[in-house]
Amino acid sequence: MTGSELLTGAVRDANGPWVARELFELGFEVVRVEIVGDRPEDLTAALRHAADFALVVTSGGLGPTADDLTAEIVAGFVGVPMELDEPMRDLIHRRVARWAQRTGFGGPALDEATRKQAMVPRGATALKPVGTAPGLVVRQPGGPLVVVLPGPPRELQGMWPAVLEAEPVRALLADVPRAEPRSLRFFGLPESEIAQTLREIGRARDLSAVEVTTCLRRSELEVDLRPLPGAEELADEVAEEIVERHRANLLSAEGATTDELLATILPAKGLTVATGESCTGGMLASRLVDRAGSSAYVAGGVVAYSNEAKTALLGVPAEMIAEHGAVSPEVARALADGARERFGAAIGVGVTGVAGPGGGTEAKPVGYVCFCVTTADGRVLTRDPVLPGSRGDIRERSTDTAMHLILRAAGGLPR
Amino acid sequence: MTGSELLTGAVRDANGPWVARELFELGFEVVRVEIVGDRPEDLTAALRHAADFALVVTSGGLGPTADDLTAEIVAGFVGVPMELDEPMRDLIHRRVARWAQRTGFGGPALDEATRKQAMVPRGATALKPVGTAPGLVVRQPGGPLVVVLPGPPRELQGMWPAVLEAEPVRALLADVPRAEPRSLRFFGLPESEIAQTLREIGRARDLSAVEVTTCLRRSELEVDLRPLPGAEELADEVAEEIVERHRANLLSAEGATTDELLATILPAKGLTVATGESCTGGMLASRLVDRAGSSAYVAGGVVAYSNEAKTALLGVPAEMIAEHGAVSPEVARALADGARERFGAAIGVGVTGVAGPGGGTEAKPVGYVCFCVTTADGRVLTRDPVLPGSRGDIRERSTDTAMHLILRAAGGLPR
Repeated sequence: MTGSELLTGAVRDANGPWVARELFELGFEVVRVEIVGDRPEDLTAALRHAADFALVVTSGGLGPTADDLTAEIVAGFVGVPMELDEPMRDLIHRRVARWAQRTGFGGPALDEATRKQAMVPRGATALKPVGTAPGLVVRQPGGPLVVVLPGPPRELQGMWPAVLEAEPVRALLADVPRAEPRSLRFFGLPESEIAQTLREIGRARDLSAVEVTTCLRRSELEVDLRPLPGAEELADEVAEEIVERHRANLLSAEGATTDELLATILPAKGLTVATGESCTGGMLASRLVDRAGSSAYVAGGVVAYSNEAKTALLGVPAEMIAEHGAVSPEVARALADGARERFGAAIGVGVTGVAGPGGGTEAKPVGYVCFCVTTADGRVLTRDPVLPGSRGDIRERSTDTAMHLILRAAGGLPR
Repeated sequence: MTGSELLTGAVRDANGPWVARELFELGFEVVRVEIVGDRPEDLTAALRHAADFALVVTSGGLGPTADDLTAEIVAGFVGVPMELDEPMRDLIHRRVARWAQRTGFGGPALDEATRKQAMVPRGATALKPVGTAPGLVVRQPGGPLVVVLPGPPRELQGMWPAVLEAEPVRALLADVPRAEPRSLRFFGLPESEIAQTLREIGRARDLSAVEVTTCLRRSELEVDLRPLPGAEELADEVAEEIVERHRANLLSAEGATTDELLATILPAKGLTVATGESCTGGMLASRLVDRAGSSAYVAGGVVAYSNEAKTALLGVPAEMIAEHGAVSPEVARALADGARERFGAAIGVGVTGVAGPGGGTEAKPVGYVCFCVTTADGRVLTRDPVLPGSRGDIRERSTDTAMHLILRAAGGLPR
């Protein structure tokens, strides 16, 4: 990954994780993700540092500005000159012509940018651009295969199928053994419990052929078991034992997330969801809408941030707010019922809490959040934890918790 | 950064960008962000690769599980043994005792985890944990200062003030020259235009003492000018010239984002906002609520995903939807007016579009999004672009565009 903006913290790298996951699933062992600035010496050092690897994938630094240097540096690393790829220049030119006409940003600036982006290391395979920067597959005798991709995630991901079809990449893939990792997923389980379980299982048998990693994300604990070739059965047995011991917290024995499970079970049962959000402010609705096809099960939602809005749009009685406070289990219930009724949904969700940093009291500190899920057939689920962290953390954990409660209400948890 | 989960793509690294930005603002030159797995040889290689640096900050690998190895590896790198820090163990024990009692996850698993987390390289400064893992500041003669921090962003960020106060870090900071970077921010300006402007300015004068980087994020182009010591005035002059040439697209000459500008101007003018969202599904409301204090200017919003909800909750006439379609400038306007009126807000925003991947037609392809912002004093702003990218991209760009239109309607753009 290159881009000085990634080192000043202005942008978070989206490509490293994405490429790493793709390579991992293809059976590669991903040793390192490295982010360096757009300076020639740092780029070159990063390539040298990876000289022993079979494959190096770079992203970024293919733009039209003078600080975008990746293609040139890779050419230098491999020891070949840069050459103008004329058909590529024409292709990029055609691609930007219409945009240039519409916006008026044509002329010499654009011609120069087009020419720069069509410069290719001699002998490299150039991949058709998704935006305006072509990708490159660069071979060198005795060194790693270098795949050079653009920085915008949309362009990088759009180009990936062409990367896998490029002849040098196909040749490399033919030599990679496929791993079959097992993933388990739990809700509300601390990592220390998994560590203890692994120690106990490890007393009776040798687990060194199974690499186990745990990862807490979106309030869910993912446990990945990756066997060395031949140890697939052992990995399965260990997975079964972990499931057996922590069944009460099991979300999925196949690694599915709450979001994935919801996207399956809600349409399968013909259930729809409506939200009444205060502190999450639309984050829950947005999370539900993240997936294609969500219109089949998301009825809609109200962000009732002010007390007046809670009353006017979701029918929360003003007296209830006066008596119990806007952050109370009573109001969470009224938000859930109000949302369910207004949108005619099967499941209603109410979330109201103190996201902070101000507004906390002794009785209702920052992080105190009330949840309620009610269903058309009369089920009611409630929670009112004090969640840790910053304003952003509290809103995200609230969204996680609400998603989990919807899944529970929909009957989507294993037993 | 360590953590095998970062290499399988399960998690996106949040700490690298955060730490990089902090260090950059302290005047450090950040050369590299490196993500490696929890394997001893990879961790050690990463430390060796950084042996020439003045400062190395690690995050992650301090957890209670056997795959968390960072403290041990750093001790080995520096050449000192690990020792049990008994007061630290007692502190961690007290911290987890109440949680253990409540959840029932106490006992030997937890005691073992507590002991492991209290092991410290001899001679290191241990920093009080925010969660259960202490941070470490580890000195070594002739090598880099190593700061070892926990992986959860909340814990890492919470510990940062203590890092800066640790004596070895203070001593290092005293030697770092402060840079004074200039940031400009534009909306709707391609990078190629900045490249051309820099080439033109560069013909008349030598710009080598000013490092210029551009970065496109949330539909905004940030241009950072970082002068070498002594070149501050040159950086200011170049910044002024860039502003002069691209004033029509200028968002802020101080680098402020649309979100920051909105959070200032809306409360200053006493303006409130209400949203009527379809394809963004709550993402716009959530973005407005991101900031502390947003209750002063966010009235609320409706996620009207279905046609029935548009009519029932925001008063969009069913005949209008039948005649023009749910994705139309007319419906965007009705969503904006409906939201503004229902919530009694000064500014109403309507967003309706085809987020995809399905649902596109020739006349209204995937990415076609209609925006409307209306104000209580009768102003109307509209847009209906075709936005590129995936479902997620389209929803994010729609949110960016809507935020920008709100800023324009609030009179918050420079002239």
